[in-house]
Amino acid sequence: MFYLIGLGLCDESDITLRGLTAIQRCSRVYLEAYTSILMVSQSRLESFYKKPLILADREMVESSADEILKDADKEDVALLVVGDPFGATTHTDIILRARSLRIPTQTIHNASILTSIGSSGLQLYNFGQTVSLVFFTPTWRPTSFYDRISENANLGLHTLVLLDIKVKEQSEENLARGRKVYEKPRYMSIPQALEQMREVEEEKKEGTLDVHNTLVIALSRMGAHPPSAPPLPASNESKPSAFESERIVAGTIHDLLSVPESEHEQTFGSPLHSLIIVGKRLHVLEAEFAEAFAVNKENWRKVAREVYMCALG
Amino acid sequence: MFYLIGLGLCDESDITLRGLTAIQRCSRVYLEAYTSILMVSQSRLESFYKKPLILADREMVESSADEILKDADKEDVALLVVGDPFGATTHTDIILRARSLRIPTQTIHNASILTSIGSSGLQLYNFGQTVSLVFFTPTWRPTSFYDRISENANLGLHTLVLLDIKVKEQSEENLARGRKVYEKPRYMSIPQALEQMREVEEEKKEGTLDVHNTLVIALSRMGAHPPSAPPLPASNESKPSAFESERIVAGTIHDLLSVPESEHEQTFGSPLHSLIIVGKRLHVLEAEFAEAFAVNKENWRKVAREVYMCALG
Repeated sequence: MFYLIGLGLCDESDITLRGLTAIQRCSRVYLEAYTSILMVSQSRLESFYKKPLILADREMVESSADEILKDADKEDVALLVVGDPFGATTHTDIILRARSLRIPTQTIHNASILTSIGSSGLQLYNFGQTVSLVFFTPTWRPTSFYDRISENANLGLHTLVLLDIKVKEQSEENLARGRKVYEKPRYMSIPQALEQMREVEEEKKEGTLDVHNTLVIALSRMGAHPPSAPPLPASNESKPSAFESERIVAGTIHDLLSVPESEHEQTFGSPLHSLIIVGKRLHVLEAEFAEAFAVNKENWRKVAREVYMCALG
Repeated sequence: MFYLIGLGLCDESDITLRGLTAIQRCSRVYLEAYTSILMVSQSRLESFYKKPLILADREMVESSADEILKDADKEDVALLVVGDPFGATTHTDIILRARSLRIPTQTIHNASILTSIGSSGLQLYNFGQTVSLVFFTPTWRPTSFYDRISENANLGLHTLVLLDIKVKEQSEENLARGRKVYEKPRYMSIPQALEQMREVEEEKKEGTLDVHNTLVIALSRMGAHPPSAPPLPASNESKPSAFESERIVAGTIHDLLSVPESEHEQTFGSPLHSLIIVGKRLHVLEAEFAEAFAVNKENWRKVAREVYMCALG
């Protein structure tokens, strides 16, 4: 059996019992490590699952699926994926390949960023299509994300924007010279995302991301809560760091862009970051719930009332 | 602390370790039982969690939030919710109430039908807003679901349609006479949903749900897999029944409506059922993946090619 197992959003304790039972039956366990990240180290997962993990990078999952699937018709093999396994395209590819090799497969689902955003108070059925935002480079500034957000906005729907992750990337020079030297991982932050949005709005001038009239909700480390009874003693961690819980911050694009750089760390903290663009169907209960997260509550209410026509008391 | 804990989709083994640890700390644990259902009995959950569960119906969660939240500032209380907690509006209400009582809250996420549908092979970022379909009655036939599907369809997006659940409903007569007598739970089946869609298409004639040219994917019991090593001996179950795994069936609306009633049980099986209306952005990889689930593979390919312009080989 080939198992595709979701790990949830934060640490080793977010696996389901079904998932853990499956892992412990497997002869090989791969850990997918490029579409998202957990907030704990690989060694911590290994101690907790009582299994060595084989790190699977994008190249391996995309080009060496057969290596991962080897003998999975005779024994149990698992690929662990942060969140729910079907967030990324790659995972349907490997299931298709397993099918063609007549290997039975089973998916064990888990929490995903796509539904954890309900904690913002916005209703999940008011969201349109999900959008990705990639790091702009001097030569590559894809703006199709803006058009997707506009499609949702025209229907009054909210948009979840997933921010770029660069893991195991090569510099252009290293790529050209065929050197397998990799850059440090990079995770797009909320301020970086908002800055790119501001730039694209200035080019397009369609108003979808008007900085003063667009409400957004910034999400950091969704699903992260301090373990109250840690499954592992702290000494197992090479360097126990201060735990950063999930954080939700709301405001207009301008409100959040006005947070001084010196306060970014305190306001948003470590990755992963995501962003919600609030749609005009905003319900008064949604606005009230999210107001608690606003950097400037007065402005949040003003824009919700005057631009979003929300009947806030 | 007030915990809102997701139980995932199938049985007692779908809880996360984080969720289970929290439950075991709680002095009171409520089980929400009207927005969705697990596929196992309450007593099985109680044995497994080693906690008595208090059944919380809609009335209790909506009108007696204070009873649930009682003393949660001094001790730990949990409300267990099938799937991920923020599928339904009610759960933001109870968090708002907790906030006003200055009770700290924590949400423990889990798998949701909203992302488990990735198992169909359709990409989650190609879905628009999620839609609900309620049981029609002779006097109430809301058709706004059709307009929502059209909004998605106009953008080429897929739509997840959640089918109605009636738990603890009163007949009109019992309601009028104030008798607290409740009807048997009802769960809308895929054939019932398709029949209602066919009726609305015949009234509206806009083509969004044209029975011959619309591809749909029917989902039954998403996330259900037989427990390979059951956490509890079968004898704990009052009546062990044949286990029904998740099932995915694809075709045009007409293909699925053509399944004879005598084969409904075999084709779709027990609840819960959901339905995906496939949008025109359908990618060739999505079409290929889902073809494996088609009742009529030839017709699936034909419609994908000719109506959806999918470059299937």
